[in-house]
Amino acid sequence: MGEPTKADYTAALLLIGNELLSGRTKDANLAYIGGRCTDLGIRLVEARVVADVPEAIVAAANTLRAEVDYLFTTGGIGPTHDDITAECIARAVGRPLIVNPEAKAMLESYYGAAINPARLRMARTPEGAELIENPVSTAPGFRIENVYVLAGIPKIMQAMFESLAPGLVGGAPILSRALEVNLAESMIAPVLTEAQAAFAGDGEAAKVDIGSYPFARGGAFGVSVVMRSTDAERLEHCLLTVQSGIRDLGGMAEERGG
Amino acid sequence: MGEPTKADYTAALLLIGNELLSGRTKDANLAYIGGRCTDLGIRLVEARVVADVPEAIVAAANTLRAEVDYLFTTGGIGPTHDDITAECIARAVGRPLIVNPEAKAMLESYYGAAINPARLRMARTPEGAELIENPVSTAPGFRIENVYVLAGIPKIMQAMFESLAPGLVGGAPILSRALEVNLAESMIAPVLTEAQAAFAGDGEAAKVDIGSYPFARGGAFGVSVVMRSTDAERLEHCLLTVQSGIRDLGGMAEERGG
Repeated sequence: MGEPTKADYTAALLLIGNELLSGRTKDANLAYIGGRCTDLGIRLVEARVVADVPEAIVAAANTLRAEVDYLFTTGGIGPTHDDITAECIARAVGRPLIVNPEAKAMLESYYGAAINPARLRMARTPEGAELIENPVSTAPGFRIENVYVLAGIPKIMQAMFESLAPGLVGGAPILSRALEVNLAESMIAPVLTEAQAAFAGDGEAAKVDIGSYPFARGGAFGVSVVMRSTDAERLEHCLLTVQSGIRDLGGMAEERGG
Repeated sequence: MGEPTKADYTAALLLIGNELLSGRTKDANLAYIGGRCTDLGIRLVEARVVADVPEAIVAAANTLRAEVDYLFTTGGIGPTHDDITAECIARAVGRPLIVNPEAKAMLESYYGAAINPARLRMARTPEGAELIENPVSTAPGFRIENVYVLAGIPKIMQAMFESLAPGLVGGAPILSRALEVNLAESMIAPVLTEAQAAFAGDGEAAKVDIGSYPFARGGAFGVSVVMRSTDAERLEHCLLTVQSGIRDLGGMAEERGG
């Protein structure tokens, strides 16, 4: 991984596919990429899900890539007529779509005599793209400028993400700690509001982000309070503040794996 | 449900919450709302996931509500400091945020003596909003103009959606049929490309949308070919065309529940 040259690195995610919007397929890629970005000190600021419509894909790609350090896309790079991501990203970055010689050689070697025009569709990239390795099924993803084009099938997407991850530069890793609380969210709200104000951060002190997530588990209700920051000491201090505020209300607030 | 006055009804979905972007919480609302829109003859054209940042929520709400018949939002209507959806939607539609008298009365009656300022936060709506019933935990959602503001917790969101669904007007229901195929996607691609061209639709004939979704199940690989249209007869015709094309390649193509 390169050296960070700024404090905050951002990413966006563009999920492509009619099947995600029709309810037929349940997306599993947002949570994976969100979690891995967090690990890498990259803040995922937005995700969009669009249909297999060229204008929608091109417009979303261009809006998002201008706003962030890294834009990831998933889906639409298979061999069939509805796989149009490569041509849309080529349009978005204003480069011709070519048959990438390196990708073509990989596919020819993988498929041997069974290579056909549909399979060769998967060798198309914008001119100048760098391939992203697919250790599962060969057909590669690619990077062009700050856009990383990945498969939609979770297992393949994850393998591709892990092959590109070492090349991503992030900021300080975002640390997280969590309290499990046995009071209603609306009981502990004032404690959280006060702590959020106290740990809002300023130019010098890092912010702590406090999130509150009610849960019902085996008949018991409660709240997970999750605190996130790049500064371990501030995070610790915030956790103790919230914990003692909740105990003052007569509640339990035990730490669990953040 | 009212009478449809046009052929195509559209929706967008705005999912609000840091926890969806950090990878901490796996979204379950997109697939539910996508599936229910399909049932209702409403095409979900886009979904966006944004963080708990007022500017991001307001901008996304305003872009999306201008493009569709219905904008649904999920998340950010609980009692804590990070629940800012009501104020953001009020800003987006340019109306003051008020304490909704009807919502206040419902919460007071539900909580009795345990009512407090955090709980009363959940009574805030833009002026002129209509409440959406929450049979699970009382605190209501609301509709203002074409924006439907729902809870983030899936069980509550679903209950709210079902209480508003009878009031949504949709077009012709989108029908779906599916073939399970035992050949590789790249083998059957030409059959699908040809069928998609033949059933692209025009002014008179409804379009059939053909999607192709590879799967691996217990060691067996294959493809689900899903066809969707508002016209049952065209759908049947397309299904038979694809089925016979795949059988000509020596493959199996059996219908299964669409």
